[in-house]
Amino acid sequence: MPAPAMSADEIAKLLHEVFPQAFYPGCGLTLERVEYADIRVRRHFHEDYLRPGGTISGPTMMELADFAMYVAVFSAIGPQPLAVTTNLTINFLRKPAQADLIADAKLLKVGKRLAVGEVAIYSAGSDEPVAHVTATYSIPAQR
Amino acid sequence: MPAPAMSADEIAKLLHEVFPQAFYPGCGLTLERVEYADIRVRRHFHEDYLRPGGTISGPTMMELADFAMYVAVFSAIGPQPLAVTTNLTINFLRKPAQADLIADAKLLKVGKRLAVGEVAIYSAGSDEPVAHVTATYSIPAQR
Amino acid sequence: MPAPAMSADEIAKLLHEVFPQAFYPGCGLTLERVEYADIRVRRHFHEDYLRPGGTISGPTMMELADFAMYVAVFSAIGPQPLAVTTNLTINFLRKPAQADLIADAKLLKVGKRLAVGEVAIYSAGSDEPVAHVTATYSIPAQR
Amino acid sequence: MPAPAMSADEIAKLLHEVFPQAFYPGCGLTLERVEYADIRVRRHFHEDYLRPGGTISGPTMMELADFAMYVAVFSAIGPQPLAVTTNLTINFLRKPAQADLIADAKLLKVGKRLAVGEVAIYSAGSDEPVAHVTATYSIPAQR
Repeated sequence: MPAPAMSADEIAKLLHEVFPQAFYPGCGLTLERVEYADIRVRRHFHEDYLRPGGTISGPTMMELADFAMYVAVFSAIGPQPLAVTTNLTINFLRKPAQADLIADAKLLKVGKRLAVGEVAIYSAGSDEPVAHVTATYSIPAQR
Repeated sequence: MPAPAMSADEIAKLLHEVFPQAFYPGCGLTLERVEYADIRVRRHFHEDYLRPGGTISGPTMMELADFAMYVAVFSAIGPQPLAVTTNLTINFLRKPAQADLIADAKLLKVGKRLAVGEVAIYSAGSDEPVAHVTATYSIPAQR
Repeated sequence: MPAPAMSADEIAKLLHEVFPQAFYPGCGLTLERVEYADIRVRRHFHEDYLRPGGTISGPTMMELADFAMYVAVFSAIGPQPLAVTTNLTINFLRKPAQADLIADAKLLKVGKRLAVGEVAIYSAGSDEPVAHVTATYSIPAQR
Repeated sequence: MPAPAMSADEIAKLLHEVFPQAFYPGCGLTLERVEYADIRVRRHFHEDYLRPGGTISGPTMMELADFAMYVAVFSAIGPQPLAVTTNLTINFLRKPAQADLIADAKLLKVGKRLAVGEVAIYSAGSDEPVAHVTATYSIPAQR
């Protein structure tokens, strides 16, 4: 397995520079582990994410999965902030607990044009996934 | 075509009651049209939605699509706030303008257990979609 | 709307040359309409497609949708037989009749690298879709 | 982990009874491993599956994934031949070899109404997936 193209600290610094609306001190997102094409991020619980029935909203999980894929792409191909999602499929599996969300993202393919990965999302402390995502990122040609 | 199960005003009132974190005066979401299984909602532009490259973030569009589907489900089966998304697939098609987003949602199937629909998202003033979504909602058994 | 890049006859001839295992006299597939990025194909009924419960099998519909997208790509960008599907999402909506299947494919985006489209599949004689598909084709760089 | 609800032999016998068009001696499908919600099937290579460029056709892989999910559902909930796919998303990752295809299916959720799983497809002898699938099966209410 190759070394990651960027460390967790390097990715956090890049995200803070290029995406300050989403990633800033106190935003509730933490990079917990960065290996090559294989990363973990955490979304700290906030009751704003709740929806009817006491469950965490679907968009909160979609946003987390998209963020996790973005980090996974950086871990494999380095600083490419203009990489963009071309598609994403999410399956909601269980009602999440009112707890932090953990997202484990792995890339299944790292191509010249496209990176494809999957993300499993868990409630912290549980090992049954609450959602599963597959997504494709398009990598800019000017690499 | 049957009449909608709820009017736009009835749906707005329900959303405000059951989902006050997401739907409140000034939240930037407007119900523009509600027919049976066929609705339009608008997300007013805010620069918080931007991401690197000056484009509106993917999660902003996913959240809008999920919201539009939720409204479409209400238009067809009435007040079922515990209806939940079971899966959602989004294809990102074009870079959105820095403008309002319009989402047109239509249900392709309204079953006893599942409702399936598609959503086309446009930048206001353009007729080329910026994203396309298909999604399934699970309808609670206690109808 | 531009003219199609290839006519129905030209596409049929190309398919017969490059894909003789799938497209040959008597194969049961007919190109019914070819406009720019907007086509219709028909799969003639055969009882081999049935599965338990008397319904047409899912893979029969997936294959038809993929074929319809392939034809739609040709209608927009011309003879590119090495265009390949990168992903496909199908929602099964209703039990198909024991009848021909009609697939209407439209491209939502025709880019330099990727073409994205949707396909609605109907049982002949019905106007309620039995399945809905979105798919992405990757277009070879050597265009 | 519970024991599988049916053994490989029991599933093969059921498939042969209920789905003789697809599963018969010489059909090229083999059940290689059946555990609870976790199974492996093999599709023996046949040149009929080839498409332009010497690659195995997408529909061949979609059919295999759907079949693998069907077997996984039986492994978890027993003989339910009327379980039907409600949606399926496939990502094509690499060009398959002209070799047998191996499909590993695991269920991510086994609910009362829905079972959700993922399938990784490999060319025999390789450990890089050629395709990845997520799919949902609807389970008949009359269980």
